[in-house]
Amino acid sequence: MRRLFPRRPKSPGLSPGTLVHIGEKKSDTVKISYLEYNADDYFSEGEIAAIGELNSATDPSTVTWINVAGLHQIEIIETVGQSFGIHPLLLEDILNTDQRPKMEQYDHYLYISLKMIHWRDDPGEIETEQVSIVLGNSFVLTFQEQEKDVFDPVRRRVREGTGRIRDSSADYLAYALLDIIVDHYFLILEYMGEHIELVEEELITEPDVETLQRIYSLKREMLFLRRSVWPLREIIGRLQRGDSSLFQSGSLIYLRDVYEHTIQVIDTVETFRDIVSGLLDIYLSSLSNKMNEVMKVLTVIATIFIPLTFLTSLYGMNFSFMPELAWPWAYPTLWGLMLIISGTMLLYFKKKDWL
Amino acid sequence: MRRLFPRRPKSPGLSPGTLVHIGEKKSDTVKISYLEYNADDYFSEGEIAAIGELNSATDPSTVTWINVAGLHQIEIIETVGQSFGIHPLLLEDILNTDQRPKMEQYDHYLYISLKMIHWRDDPGEIETEQVSIVLGNSFVLTFQEQEKDVFDPVRRRVREGTGRIRDSSADYLAYALLDIIVDHYFLILEYMGEHIELVEEELITEPDVETLQRIYSLKREMLFLRRSVWPLREIIGRLQRGDSSLFQSGSLIYLRDVYEHTIQVIDTVETFRDIVSGLLDIYLSSLSNKMNEVMKVLTVIATIFIPLTFLTSLYGMNFSFMPELAWPWAYPTLWGLMLIISGTMLLYFKKKDWL
Amino acid sequence: MRRLFPRRPKSPGLSPGTLVHIGEKKSDTVKISYLEYNADDYFSEGEIAAIGELNSATDPSTVTWINVAGLHQIEIIETVGQSFGIHPLLLEDILNTDQRPKMEQYDHYLYISLKMIHWRDDPGEIETEQVSIVLGNSFVLTFQEQEKDVFDPVRRRVREGTGRIRDSSADYLAYALLDIIVDHYFLILEYMGEHIELVEEELITEPDVETLQRIYSLKREMLFLRRSVWPLREIIGRLQRGDSSLFQSGSLIYLRDVYEHTIQVIDTVETFRDIVSGLLDIYLSSLSNKMNEVMKVLTVIATIFIPLTFLTSLYGMNFSFMPELAWPWAYPTLWGLMLIISGTMLLYFKKKDWL
Amino acid sequence: MRRLFPRRPKSPGLSPGTLVHIGEKKSDTVKISYLEYNADDYFSEGEIAAIGELNSATDPSTVTWINVAGLHQIEIIETVGQSFGIHPLLLEDILNTDQRPKMEQYDHYLYISLKMIHWRDDPGEIETEQVSIVLGNSFVLTFQEQEKDVFDPVRRRVREGTGRIRDSSADYLAYALLDIIVDHYFLILEYMGEHIELVEEELITEPDVETLQRIYSLKREMLFLRRSVWPLREIIGRLQRGDSSLFQSGSLIYLRDVYEHTIQVIDTVETFRDIVSGLLDIYLSSLSNKMNEVMKVLTVIATIFIPLTFLTSLYGMNFSFMPELAWPWAYPTLWGLMLIISGTMLLYFKKKDWL
Amino acid sequence: MRRLFPRRPKSPGLSPGTLVHIGEKKSDTVKISYLEYNADDYFSEGEIAAIGELNSATDPSTVTWINVAGLHQIEIIETVGQSFGIHPLLLEDILNTDQRPKMEQYDHYLYISLKMIHWRDDPGEIETEQVSIVLGNSFVLTFQEQEKDVFDPVRRRVREGTGRIRDSSADYLAYALLDIIVDHYFLILEYMGEHIELVEEELITEPDVETLQRIYSLKREMLFLRRSVWPLREIIGRLQRGDSSLFQSGSLIYLRDVYEHTIQVIDTVETFRDIVSGLLDIYLSSLSNKMNEVMKVLTVIATIFIPLTFLTSLYGMNFSFMPELAWPWAYPTLWGLMLIISGTMLLYFKKKDWL
Repeated sequence: MRRLFPRRPKSPGLSPGTLVHIGEKKSDTVKISYLEYNADDYFSEGEIAAIGELNSATDPSTVTWINVAGLHQIEIIETVGQSFGIHPLLLEDILNTDQRPKMEQYDHYLYISLKMIHWRDDPGEIETEQVSIVLGNSFVLTFQEQEKDVFDPVRRRVREGTGRIRDSSADYLAYALLDIIVDHYFLILEYMGEHIELVEEELITEPDVETLQRIYSLKREMLFLRRSVWPLREIIGRLQRGDSSLFQSGSLIYLRDVYEHTIQVIDTVETFRDIVSGLLDIYLSSLSNKMNEVMKVLTVIATIFIPLTFLTSLYGMNFSFMPELAWPWAYPTLWGLMLIISGTMLLYFKKKDWL
Repeated sequence: MRRLFPRRPKSPGLSPGTLVHIGEKKSDTVKISYLEYNADDYFSEGEIAAIGELNSATDPSTVTWINVAGLHQIEIIETVGQSFGIHPLLLEDILNTDQRPKMEQYDHYLYISLKMIHWRDDPGEIETEQVSIVLGNSFVLTFQEQEKDVFDPVRRRVREGTGRIRDSSADYLAYALLDIIVDHYFLILEYMGEHIELVEEELITEPDVETLQRIYSLKREMLFLRRSVWPLREIIGRLQRGDSSLFQSGSLIYLRDVYEHTIQVIDTVETFRDIVSGLLDIYLSSLSNKMNEVMKVLTVIATIFIPLTFLTSLYGMNFSFMPELAWPWAYPTLWGLMLIISGTMLLYFKKKDWL
Repeated sequence: MRRLFPRRPKSPGLSPGTLVHIGEKKSDTVKISYLEYNADDYFSEGEIAAIGELNSATDPSTVTWINVAGLHQIEIIETVGQSFGIHPLLLEDILNTDQRPKMEQYDHYLYISLKMIHWRDDPGEIETEQVSIVLGNSFVLTFQEQEKDVFDPVRRRVREGTGRIRDSSADYLAYALLDIIVDHYFLILEYMGEHIELVEEELITEPDVETLQRIYSLKREMLFLRRSVWPLREIIGRLQRGDSSLFQSGSLIYLRDVYEHTIQVIDTVETFRDIVSGLLDIYLSSLSNKMNEVMKVLTVIATIFIPLTFLTSLYGMNFSFMPELAWPWAYPTLWGLMLIISGTMLLYFKKKDWL
Repeated sequence: MRRLFPRRPKSPGLSPGTLVHIGEKKSDTVKISYLEYNADDYFSEGEIAAIGELNSATDPSTVTWINVAGLHQIEIIETVGQSFGIHPLLLEDILNTDQRPKMEQYDHYLYISLKMIHWRDDPGEIETEQVSIVLGNSFVLTFQEQEKDVFDPVRRRVREGTGRIRDSSADYLAYALLDIIVDHYFLILEYMGEHIELVEEELITEPDVETLQRIYSLKREMLFLRRSVWPLREIIGRLQRGDSSLFQSGSLIYLRDVYEHTIQVIDTVETFRDIVSGLLDIYLSSLSNKMNEVMKVLTVIATIFIPLTFLTSLYGMNFSFMPELAWPWAYPTLWGLMLIISGTMLLYFKKKDWL
Repeated sequence: MRRLFPRRPKSPGLSPGTLVHIGEKKSDTVKISYLEYNADDYFSEGEIAAIGELNSATDPSTVTWINVAGLHQIEIIETVGQSFGIHPLLLEDILNTDQRPKMEQYDHYLYISLKMIHWRDDPGEIETEQVSIVLGNSFVLTFQEQEKDVFDPVRRRVREGTGRIRDSSADYLAYALLDIIVDHYFLILEYMGEHIELVEEELITEPDVETLQRIYSLKREMLFLRRSVWPLREIIGRLQRGDSSLFQSGSLIYLRDVYEHTIQVIDTVETFRDIVSGLLDIYLSSLSNKMNEVMKVLTVIATIFIPLTFLTSLYGMNFSFMPELAWPWAYPTLWGLMLIISGTMLLYFKKKDWL
């Protein structure tokens, strides 16, 4: 089960800038890969096996994308940070995977952290992984918790040179990464939507205690999704209004697109919340309905037979003087009486719509 | 049943500007029609059979309205886009019918996307269709998902030259289209209002499980209507404050009118939401009331007859020594006692207001 | 029953400015009355029988108030509009009685539309009537749906020359009309407050299904009152901040007064809403309380007599070998046992506080 | 019981500025007292028996504080108003004790109206009294509904010359009065807090219908307290930001203090509201819990004895051919069977945790 | 149990600036300790036994941190205040431990008051202690209610000269203190999160009345935590935007970090609130579920045996003429009939899913 609460940003009292990995260790090794390209058809791709190989001097005329998958080896993050002149507080943020999405503008680069969201279908849970994007003039650094990511289509576009990406500068690459992360949220919304419809159907056919637990867990997942998505609205909103000089004006129109998608994701999450709280109302009233039904059955049976049993018990008494007992027509008359009583009652219940 | 969740804007990882139709295919063919007119009584109307016929050069002295019904043939949208110099990202938006209503200002034209809403009475559902309006200096392009639309009265006004429309420029035509779409929302509100009143009445006469489902589905429809209408407030609000230079100042007073109507639609939707959540409260308390009634019947019958049955059962015992059994007046006395007991109880229940 | 939903502003597709009366026809005839006065003791009052008599040229040195009661004769509204140079869109608004209160500033005049509220005591409903006020430099036009109105005290003050009204210009007259309409809202609040207190009392003495309906209808009335009053806050707020040049600075202090009253009305409506939703909570828990009481009676009676009936039934068996049946003290002993059992149970229920 | 709704500001239609006392008459006589002092040790205190004695010319070098207790004699208020050149609309506000707290800046003086709150312990209700403070350059006028007030400590400080008060100008006196009124709110919060804790305890020990009424009445009192306190936030906020030139910059730091206290009062009121609505939830679930307990007792007794009674009734039948009746061990065997049945059931209920 | 309501800021009517300790006396003695250091390796640490030893003249080239633990000896606070030229109103605030967190900018120093939060595990309660921080040009004063605090790691860093702290000026020290206090909130959130998960688990396994009390108490603790944390958002937000000149621009980046943490704490508190209110919903529906289960057991047993008992009672009657009694197969036939009846009923309940 996911932790309800974030981890402390660092052990309290450590100097700021002391690097500590905070979060689960999600991969065993750290994998550093790079991609370099420019508009003149230069393209190079590879993996950096030893951290020493990292070439700190990046050519301003090419775009370099370095992707670090795995955050538990602090010295690697430190070396990467030093190579690109990254502020220690920013490195601390990269290592702290329990953060809220945020954007911070430094002198020569821009830091954006977001949540990449995966869906684990079995318990119907979302899984978040933090992605840190550092955008410089001619480079993009990305830091993830594990190797699995959603960036493959972007890699393919760079490799194959489809679209504008090879002809554009680093900010377009950063946009492409933001775009694909936000696009993935729609996938999560689809899964969630299907899950909600499943629960909806279950509610109508056969609601039980598990349905309640499913609704509650949906509510909780929604809370977490919301916390991952809401801050994005402000971050991308500020970017698309041109808050950062690293995004050239030509890219703003693309960011506007991402912004619209973010708004739509938030919109849908809010609608889901309303729908899920509506589900709970239905669950509660279906409980009441069931209780009503149970009570009606009990009431119908009991109110029909209790008076009849009284009558039969009456003539089971052993008084010496009970004239009816001797009447020859007493027994059939009693049967008639009992039929009339139960018939009347059935009619009454019919009228009350209890049958 | 309508999808709860929007479709992903495009397959994640496609370059931005790659055109993909997102949404249901609602019509088989694509129909392109045009209307051209100016203040000097020039008027021409027709249909464009082959996309090649499209005359890209529009005469700045006439107003051209091109309406494309059907979005699944991407090459048609592409050709239209190229003819009028439309940005590829905008074309992508036109093709994505799962968008939130939005307005975007480009250099030479303005893009507005809204939802045209129809009402399907049978399950009491709303049906939304996206309409994209591109307003240029002397042209208006509209893109819809299917041929059925609400624009006929505007077409008639252009054709017959009633009102100011023939004497005005393209922005007035765009206003007229916005106006008629928003006016149609009132029709939807009327249908919804009638549906609510129906459910209200059902709640008083004979509430059952279906009533609950109706309330829940009303709530859901409301959520969708709201999502379609809320963004309009900001869009038309910005237009009427003169945000876009394409709307001449003479048209702003008309947009103010549309703005007021939008506000009123939103207002009504919010009131409906309050009323519908009030309906749920009533439903729940009517369930409790019914349960109370059932319980009272059971209690009255059971508490009257259980003691009586005890008495009759008492004198059905077979003890050798039971002096009462031999008393001649025992049986009538017992009857008297039982009448007194049940009478007292009835009085008690009468006093408690249970009968 | 009042309509839940507003009427469409006009038949969709009509040119803007086409005059159509929207709303119920509340009076048979249209009555046009006028009042003219200035600070030099000039005063004239009368009724305009034929619309042709309307003197379009108003003397700038006198204040002219023309009141039109009844909106269904469009040509009358049209003539009045033409006489005073009123914009056709504004006339459309005057005729549409299903509007939200609003204020619109035109070049030479100001348009304010509000709701005049009456209280119909029988079903405890409010009734709204739209009043349109057009304030020009030296004239005030008012348009109402029927003759009955709340303006008589203002008429009297003009007639008798009490207060500042005769010495002031048209804006003061407009203020006096706004003031008296808002003052009338307090009357409505009083009626509503009394109605709430009535329902409160009913809840304590004898809540039944009707009480629930009363609460629900109160809630609905509140929603409608709110819709009529909330927009006023902004309208009068803007006026008192001097948004319109037609209100001279000397009148702003009076508008501030009206503004305070509007705020207080809104405040009270919101408090009422909170109180009414509190009433529903009480209603629901009083239902639960009643159910508890019913259940306790049933439980006490059933749990006392069921075991006793078992015992009596036991000794009603016809086994050949049942030694107790022959014991002489068996019957009195059983009585003793039964008394002990029921006594113990009564004590237990007493302790549980169920009796 | 307090009125739910405010009184109409004046009889509708009266000219603005017509003085009418609105509210309950809370004292029989009107008592006017004054305090005059300056930094040079001049001090004078007394009561004004006849309204004619009022010295309208106030010495700008001394601070004059005139306190009017009792508002029902309009001519007194009028005379005071004329002496100090107060605007008639302001006098109208002073007389209307059903107002919302407000602040109004006039040319030469500042008007602040607030609520002084007392606590009546018996029904656990708050009682509000309106205080109007008019601050001029060298005078402070206060108007209250009755003689009882919270100003004594301020009077003592002036009399005895403790603190800065005698060395400061009129604005410091006004501050001191505001301060002591807001300080008194903390007292009310203490009483309310104790009341809430009492109800909390009652909820745990023995909740009954009265507890519900107590919770509801707490909720209502909270609504009223809130209405009295919320507007203060804005009023004192504006004062401490230096909105009025009558408060010298040296006094702003003190107003900031009062502002903080106001915020804290509002904060506490909001927390109380949350707590009280939590109490209602607990009350409702304790009702459900009780019902559960009642039902369990009924179910345990009924399900144990109903099958046993069936068995005994079975062998009470009078069929000629019932072999068991003749078996010598039948009776003890039946006893054994019944013990086993009831034992099994008891174990089942034990396992279900119903006993 | 913690007090629900804040104490009055001072006895009403005392002059502002009169020093009174408001709050619980949490320590017996007052302990004053100091730390002095500069970038040139000067470092001095110690305790001030007698208040006279306090050296009021602080060397602007060294940073002095004076920590006062224990607030009940007013004269000590007063002496410290006079030594550093602190405004009396500020001293009043330091002594009032029931305040809301706040920040106040004075001419030469900045006042920040926050809540240090501890967790008492036994009843699952939070305990707040007020910390006042006064930041001057070259000094930091801290005032706490008791000696126990969270500052030790900062002391250690100063002592050992780790990180930037010894090379920085007083504002960095103030930042470090703020940082460690906010970091501690994460600890509290962890404890609360664990507590919530505990209650969650209890809800699923065996919810009882205590669970409800736990939920309610969690809700209350949340309210208090919220009140302590929310105001921090604004305080630190203003600081990090550079509102106070005492924080040098180099420190702002660190404050931004604290700000992010504060936002995250608030975010988590809000999520907790949502989760806890979800717990209540689950509790209520689990009550309904239990009731349903109880009712089903009762209904199944009663509806099966009541008709059977009627039959047996029928043949216990003593009518002279009851032909069935003499039939030899009557008894086995009856048995068969009863088996059929109860079998049918069991099937019916099975189908209804009641078994």
